[in-house]
Amino acid sequence: MLEKISSPEDLKALDPGKYQELAAEIRQFLLEKVSEHGGHLASNLGVVELTMALHLALDLPEDKIVWDVGHQSYTHKLLTGRRDDFDSLREYGGLSGFPKRKESQYDCFDTGHSSTSISAGLGLVEARDRLRETYTVVSVIGDGALSGGMAYEALNNASRLKSNFIVVLNDNNMSISESTGGFSRYLSGIRLGSGYNNLKRDVRRGLSKVPGVGESLVENISQAKMALKQIMMVPGMFFENLDITYVGPIDGYNIPQMVRIFEEAKRIDRPVLIHVKTKKGKGYEPAERYPARYHGVTPFDVETGKSLAKASSPGYTEAFSRALCRLAEKDERIVAITAAMTEGTGLKRFASLYPDRFYDVGIAEEHAVTFAAGMAAGGLKPVVAVYSTFLQRAYDQILHDVCLQKLPVVFALDRAGLVGSDGETHHGMFDLSYLGSIPGMTVFAPKNRYELRDGLAFGLNCGGPFAIRYPRGSAWAGLKEYRAPIEFGKSEVIFYGEGIALLAVGAMVETSHAVYEGLKEAGISATLVNVRFVKPMDTELFSELSKSHSLFVTMEENVETGGFGERFAGWLSGQDSGSRVIKAALPDGFVEQGGTEVLKTKLGLSAERILERTLKVWKETNRKKNNRSKNNKHENNGKENNRKENDWKENRK
Amino acid sequence: MLEKISSPEDLKALDPGKYQELAAEIRQFLLEKVSEHGGHLASNLGVVELTMALHLALDLPEDKIVWDVGHQSYTHKLLTGRRDDFDSLREYGGLSGFPKRKESQYDCFDTGHSSTSISAGLGLVEARDRLRETYTVVSVIGDGALSGGMAYEALNNASRLKSNFIVVLNDNNMSISESTGGFSRYLSGIRLGSGYNNLKRDVRRGLSKVPGVGESLVENISQAKMALKQIMMVPGMFFENLDITYVGPIDGYNIPQMVRIFEEAKRIDRPVLIHVKTKKGKGYEPAERYPARYHGVTPFDVETGKSLAKASSPGYTEAFSRALCRLAEKDERIVAITAAMTEGTGLKRFASLYPDRFYDVGIAEEHAVTFAAGMAAGGLKPVVAVYSTFLQRAYDQILHDVCLQKLPVVFALDRAGLVGSDGETHHGMFDLSYLGSIPGMTVFAPKNRYELRDGLAFGLNCGGPFAIRYPRGSAWAGLKEYRAPIEFGKSEVIFYGEGIALLAVGAMVETSHAVYEGLKEAGISATLVNVRFVKPMDTELFSELSKSHSLFVTMEENVETGGFGERFAGWLSGQDSGSRVIKAALPDGFVEQGGTEVLKTKLGLSAERILERTLKVWKETNRKKNNRSKNNKHENNGKENNRKENDWKENRK
Repeated sequence: MLEKISSPEDLKALDPGKYQELAAEIRQFLLEKVSEHGGHLASNLGVVELTMALHLALDLPEDKIVWDVGHQSYTHKLLTGRRDDFDSLREYGGLSGFPKRKESQYDCFDTGHSSTSISAGLGLVEARDRLRETYTVVSVIGDGALSGGMAYEALNNASRLKSNFIVVLNDNNMSISESTGGFSRYLSGIRLGSGYNNLKRDVRRGLSKVPGVGESLVENISQAKMALKQIMMVPGMFFENLDITYVGPIDGYNIPQMVRIFEEAKRIDRPVLIHVKTKKGKGYEPAERYPARYHGVTPFDVETGKSLAKASSPGYTEAFSRALCRLAEKDERIVAITAAMTEGTGLKRFASLYPDRFYDVGIAEEHAVTFAAGMAAGGLKPVVAVYSTFLQRAYDQILHDVCLQKLPVVFALDRAGLVGSDGETHHGMFDLSYLGSIPGMTVFAPKNRYELRDGLAFGLNCGGPFAIRYPRGSAWAGLKEYRAPIEFGKSEVIFYGEGIALLAVGAMVETSHAVYEGLKEAGISATLVNVRFVKPMDTELFSELSKSHSLFVTMEENVETGGFGERFAGWLSGQDSGSRVIKAALPDGFVEQGGTEVLKTKLGLSAERILERTLKVWKETNRKKNNRSKNNKHENNGKENNRKENDWKENRK
Repeated sequence: MLEKISSPEDLKALDPGKYQELAAEIRQFLLEKVSEHGGHLASNLGVVELTMALHLALDLPEDKIVWDVGHQSYTHKLLTGRRDDFDSLREYGGLSGFPKRKESQYDCFDTGHSSTSISAGLGLVEARDRLRETYTVVSVIGDGALSGGMAYEALNNASRLKSNFIVVLNDNNMSISESTGGFSRYLSGIRLGSGYNNLKRDVRRGLSKVPGVGESLVENISQAKMALKQIMMVPGMFFENLDITYVGPIDGYNIPQMVRIFEEAKRIDRPVLIHVKTKKGKGYEPAERYPARYHGVTPFDVETGKSLAKASSPGYTEAFSRALCRLAEKDERIVAITAAMTEGTGLKRFASLYPDRFYDVGIAEEHAVTFAAGMAAGGLKPVVAVYSTFLQRAYDQILHDVCLQKLPVVFALDRAGLVGSDGETHHGMFDLSYLGSIPGMTVFAPKNRYELRDGLAFGLNCGGPFAIRYPRGSAWAGLKEYRAPIEFGKSEVIFYGEGIALLAVGAMVETSHAVYEGLKEAGISATLVNVRFVKPMDTELFSELSKSHSLFVTMEENVETGGFGERFAGWLSGQDSGSRVIKAALPDGFVEQGGTEVLKTKLGLSAERILERTLKVWKETNRKKNNRSKNNKHENNGKENNRKENDWKENRK
């Protein structure tokens, strides 16, 4: 049946008796595609019927659905003519795992980070009303996303609205890990429904408050007299306090009921919150049982549920996880904080070893950072473990609450650099820029898994703000014989050469090593520096290097604007050195989804591309230099390396 | 009596009968000092008694008070030995208008931006418990600050706490402008208290729920049976939904009652929210009547309430205000958004002319930006008017919700650059860096008031994200004869010269003009460029300039890291030009409070300092150059200017 559905109109033409069958087909389709390509599974399995009901009750693309976070939009994509594109799901040039305006007219607002949908939806509503249009706007938000403060800011503002706006609360009682905090318990109270069920009978009598609302819609809204114990359980009191009409909880798998309620809700001239109960992973037993594990998956075997990914070497996340637990064992003051990413950030082990020193604050990065600052002010050593892209949410809090006060908070930035198939909204490609602009911040990038350990230990004892950033994926073990003790603000020189200096940040040291070898083959003995400290920069070393190197090549997996290379070049331009700089960094633009190797090559960050560029500029420079002077004292022969190395070491003591 | 109070101990030694007298003296003192130095008035007058009661019930510095925003901490400063420092209030090197850990051991956490206090307080509580200490932590937050989402994130997390944490809700029914949204109306319901008063009698019967709480404390918490109509008014249901014990509302001017309640609250092993009713401006009639006007003031006459500031030329805020209204008259799609800063951002005129196109979203910058993005996606032309420092809160939203989707949102960034006496937490010195790192963002800085107009009009029609940044204070009218039409990404060359090129951003064009004149006196005819577009940079122009200029001087009121100069130098370093760059920018550090002229001189941003530096480097460079070659073709004589100017103009067509 699914192959006949190419637009919401096809869905509407279907016999309602076939809905369940179609839902089952969709589920099967999603399971097949996601098990093949990887992607978000549990959240999508949970909302098949909800998405169908929305499309049945609404008229897209005229009407608008804003999907919070957006990783639950697969069924929506299926129903809006993108079925065949699932063969390229999350691949380079393929179908995105998130809503994209540029992908389809049915996607009205791009999402990727949490808790934005009510704000965006409210904006669309105001635009609609001002431009005298009549479409319906629906924001679909999970209960986890409601722990993000901006969702509350938006609800607070929605409350004064005098026209229709529908918020669907997709309550699966989970954020990515388990939902956290008082609000989540409040929703659980509603779900358990003892109050709700007992109340149901009395409730119908008191209906009168909401104008224009039929009984079928408001059957769950109570205005009857009742005991406080029950009142505490009245569904929606929280939202009613905000003057938002509350409807629910309703069954997220009863399509006709949902359609009826959505259609009635469209007629109310005020904001309406419809509380829908769903289950993450619905219909696929392993995902129902372990929804966090099946939140975002790599390809897996549908029968067994087991991952098909080849056993890779342990990743940076794992290295961080182990290192942190080892350090925490010796220092009771170490505590760890996550914003709903216990598994993703590698804190699961810490959480089970030290449950009372572990804090999952929900999807609430702003709070996470200031909470950590408070802990640091009180004498603890907090580690905020977070994806680079999500920490963007807390720029101001890092600046004011941590760095202005010089508080010892460690930021463990996972997924720093390109992340692959999650694409534009998830690459960790801005942290060197946004953290770099903050006075007093230290930014450290380890070259391999061993240095991650050393760096984390160093950071926890440096007495001030400290960010350690490392990429997604397996942790390099190369150059392990180079393990100079970490000194604040000092880079590590791996190979001493002349003429060309490669300055590589973090994981790019691996790439730079290949460039170094390539240069060697071309007869050039370059200097290779593991930058380690992106901030503060080791200007003492760089000053020395500038005397004997006329070309610097900086390498970083970060956007060029505000990144390490630019900062280095900015510093160099004040030194009257005349040296030239090649900045290998991500260009000033958003980066699409795709395999990280593919993306790196395309964006000029592969060893081959950097080598090519370096040789080209080096030849140009040398030609000019030779023209200028026959007595070039910076000749590139590398002969004096050994002596030089010793001199340098001497000087740096 | 006040002169005898040098510490909280002195206050505690006082006969309770004297409290009111002391409060009156404090109010008089504050009025005198603030009317003389300027500062935050209304908020401080409102919390004199509340602050006294807190110090009476607590033992500082062992116990901790976190002041949200912090501008209401004057009485706290007075009571903790800083009376004499008020003579230097908000001056360079003087007493800060905000809590500062480095200023006093009685200040446990620095604040400045809104809605952080509950997060920080909760962090202190966790640190206390983990380190087996016993002090009390109190966060004092205004009702306005509660509209900021992170306060809600924090409350959500506080709810699972099993030990004591006191949040004092200082409810003056105002944020900076009037409080906004559903939550504010909810609090008003409590204040009006009809439900509360009617309930009072019945309530005492049902007391039992909160362990260890005496009747005096919980007299306002209800567990009795009652009708839903009344329930909607039950004080604190909102907080009880979050499992936070609610007490109140209580009178913020009854010191003995507050002390008793605070002391009892200290004994409860869970989070307690104490709702205190205060009045902004209390005790000074003009401030009571116009609390927004007396929120932050310049020196004024206490008798008349009138400002003593000399009539200055209209400021940039005023220029923006007028320009926006003029544009809005012709284009109905223009709407304006503020986060609780209607007066400060100059939107008052717009709000009164176009009330239905004006949105005050409360202290909620994150929502403001994504809401604007939604409006833009819906076809409107939103202008977010905001202080540069506060927009830091919405970095991720600007990146994802506006720029990734290329939506036409205009950011009008007021207070960009040094702001003076508000100091560290309020200088707008990071926006060029954080906005600069975002792909697709356009950053425009006008040189004078006329260009602000032109730039705003241009931005509203450019069809994409556009930030226009301008400083606090009076709007320069100089160089008004230079008003080249604005072209996307193009800088404006004011004077054509050779050798040295001055590249000035926004308000620094005024400074650069003085530098230009200074160079002229020294016989150097420099090129003066009004950068206009910080992003994207006019690399076409800069390429040309680099052929005939060996020294560039960039000037900006922004931190150097990630700022314009660094980006320019980064670009130049890839050009093999050999030109040198002087970057006149704020150094990589926080900037203290003080007059902007004093600060600029100190930080090297005054015309004199820049001129000095330029001449020094220029002489060095020329000496070297002359040594290198006698046939220097870049000689600085400016003779060919006219011909060159024409060539350039030709080339740029």
